[in-house]
Amino acid sequence: MSVTAVPGFVAAGSTCGIKPSGAPDLAMVATADGAPVTAAGVFTSNLMTAPPVLACRDHLASTGGRAAAVVLNSGNANAATGAPGRADAEEMCRLTAEAVGCSTDEVLVCSTGWIGFPLPMDAIAPAIGPLATAMSPEGGPDAARAMMTTDTVPKATVVTGTTADGGTFTVGGVAKGAAMLEPNMATMLAVVTTDAAVDAATATDLLRSAVGVSFNCLTVDGAESTNDTVLLLASGTAGPVDEAALGTALADACRDLAVQMADDAEGSTKTVFLTVTGATSDAEAAKGARDTANCQLVKCSWYGQDPYWGRIAAEMGAAGIAFDPDAITIAYGGQVVYAAGAVQPVDEDALSAHMAGRRLDLDVDLGQGDGTAWIVTTDLSHAYIDENMRTS
Amino acid sequence: MSVTAVPGFVAAGSTCGIKPSGAPDLAMVATADGAPVTAAGVFTSNLMTAPPVLACRDHLASTGGRAAAVVLNSGNANAATGAPGRADAEEMCRLTAEAVGCSTDEVLVCSTGWIGFPLPMDAIAPAIGPLATAMSPEGGPDAARAMMTTDTVPKATVVTGTTADGGTFTVGGVAKGAAMLEPNMATMLAVVTTDAAVDAATATDLLRSAVGVSFNCLTVDGAESTNDTVLLLASGTAGPVDEAALGTALADACRDLAVQMADDAEGSTKTVFLTVTGATSDAEAAKGARDTANCQLVKCSWYGQDPYWGRIAAEMGAAGIAFDPDAITIAYGGQVVYAAGAVQPVDEDALSAHMAGRRLDLDVDLGQGDGTAWIVTTDLSHAYIDENMRTS
Repeated sequence: MSVTAVPGFVAAGSTCGIKPSGAPDLAMVATADGAPVTAAGVFTSNLMTAPPVLACRDHLASTGGRAAAVVLNSGNANAATGAPGRADAEEMCRLTAEAVGCSTDEVLVCSTGWIGFPLPMDAIAPAIGPLATAMSPEGGPDAARAMMTTDTVPKATVVTGTTADGGTFTVGGVAKGAAMLEPNMATMLAVVTTDAAVDAATATDLLRSAVGVSFNCLTVDGAESTNDTVLLLASGTAGPVDEAALGTALADACRDLAVQMADDAEGSTKTVFLTVTGATSDAEAAKGARDTANCQLVKCSWYGQDPYWGRIAAEMGAAGIAFDPDAITIAYGGQVVYAAGAVQPVDEDALSAHMAGRRLDLDVDLGQGDGTAWIVTTDLSHAYIDENMRTS
Repeated sequence: MSVTAVPGFVAAGSTCGIKPSGAPDLAMVATADGAPVTAAGVFTSNLMTAPPVLACRDHLASTGGRAAAVVLNSGNANAATGAPGRADAEEMCRLTAEAVGCSTDEVLVCSTGWIGFPLPMDAIAPAIGPLATAMSPEGGPDAARAMMTTDTVPKATVVTGTTADGGTFTVGGVAKGAAMLEPNMATMLAVVTTDAAVDAATATDLLRSAVGVSFNCLTVDGAESTNDTVLLLASGTAGPVDEAALGTALADACRDLAVQMADDAEGSTKTVFLTVTGATSDAEAAKGARDTANCQLVKCSWYGQDPYWGRIAAEMGAAGIAFDPDAITIAYGGQVVYAAGAVQPVDEDALSAHMAGRRLDLDVDLGQGDGTAWIVTTDLSHAYIDENMRTS
């Protein structure tokens, strides 16, 4: 049900011809009446910032955090496209504004796909009007599908919470992302809607916190995209919501979308939930978790279903964090495979069964302090290489 | 001719039975007369330090930088093996000392192979005496072969220079390493011999500098090993050598070995020479070079022979260094593919021919300052995964 599970929002997806495959490649999410609502965004920190990200930032700044619509295309990232790319992003917003009935800076724009190719505006421009007309309260799933690049399934979520006066508010979301997923965002786009009432500053804070415990805890290949964007539109029709309640709902929605991304990551056969405890600080735990999650050798061992704790220990030892080989404890699927400086006896059948599953739990305790971190990641497979060895 | 190209050194390799394959797995390099000479070592900074590294450090400290022999085994890294592993490393030195006729702390020891399995001392111990007896001035290549793990060819080098009194001095080396290669060392072992006269403190400084411009400029997969060791034995029989001359010869020898490692890296089909210029500092250049070299997506594009500059720019933009998308210039094989914020016209045939070669030259100018860095790296192939998905 996704973004349109929230009353007052409409969406649609269509095929305008960006992708040679003929798959859907243009999406729109908007308020049903075209009126602007509270809006917030969290964006990539990559300095090779794509034009649509620059457009979003400018628009949110000029409106003080208001937007009526988001237009998205897949198949082309409109990144490293210079001034013409910036003009194209603006033109997508202008055409959307015209169709929806708002001002250009009340439209946000996202692009995802290959970097460095001019956006095919001759395909996109004529498709925007019909797409706006096609938007409906049932259109969320179509929008999610039209955002996909190498994703094999659309990603959507719905979370509900209780408003200040005992009513119900809803958070809905759609997302895409299957590679270049890394803390500090990824090649990922997400649009989140809610009917909770919240001001722009609070919305930005809550969205940033939600991203911090969800998308920023997801790494597939350590590569940070030029286009990563998470947008929130909040209509306020459900009335005031306690900040903590809205924060929790946003975090739950984003975490759900992040795990869906890991499950569908390019070529991956395993989703790995890595928890690090016992570091001297949360930051050291996160550094160890991230280095380990991004280690090609460790990723290969997951693909091989091999509980090779030696590489886990070696990565933690090389992470530049407080470390003692005799204090580290490593467990797969709850079974301790290494502790007190020695290999531990395990139930081989149970361990093999865990390693053969789609989802792996890897717990590492460093025995140094109280710092913890959690990260979701994936293995490295032949199929990942196949998907990334050629741009065409 | 390797380490035994240097007068006064002997070496040998043999098969003691560590490897199930029956390939050579035990090597020794020593002075011909068993007398200790100047010795220096540079070791992994991984805190999951393997017992043989601890033994080397202890021995060099207790002798003040003197050694008569190095004993090495492949097939088992004696890493994460705790106190028993430390005792095994010491026993390898004791047995070698007995056979060579020096003291135990005048022996250095290296192990390479899988992490976390006890060293099979019942195979190693009885083989050390016969190996010492077999050492000869022709034995360097056999020693190089017995150090190999997933290497497909032995690595050896010989460099000559001029001594202070106009004579000739020689530097010889053997090395192994085919994965877990990364700045700050790698799963690599190297033994370098010379007849130049040098004191232990100077030898250590010069070796560290040589490692800095060679092995530390090599990254295959961003993984730092628990066992990385570079050892130098300097007999002094050629007489005094100007420090700069010895430093140059050591750097040349180490660089030659490092490039041989890249050429033979696990499953790699490309050796990539990445030069970054125009950074605000050498440190920022090195950070950009390293992040790009270790990026899975970039490595996949090399495997696919795809000059995909978009990912190169995106990695540099995400490296946390001074960066301007309009100032970056990217060239493959001397052909500028991206500059001034736009794709550049290229000679497609010449570019394709370069990308199809075994060695790629990638030059990135950031346009920010005078900082430079140089790194050798490899692509990411199906074969890399095959080699690393199982420990057995």
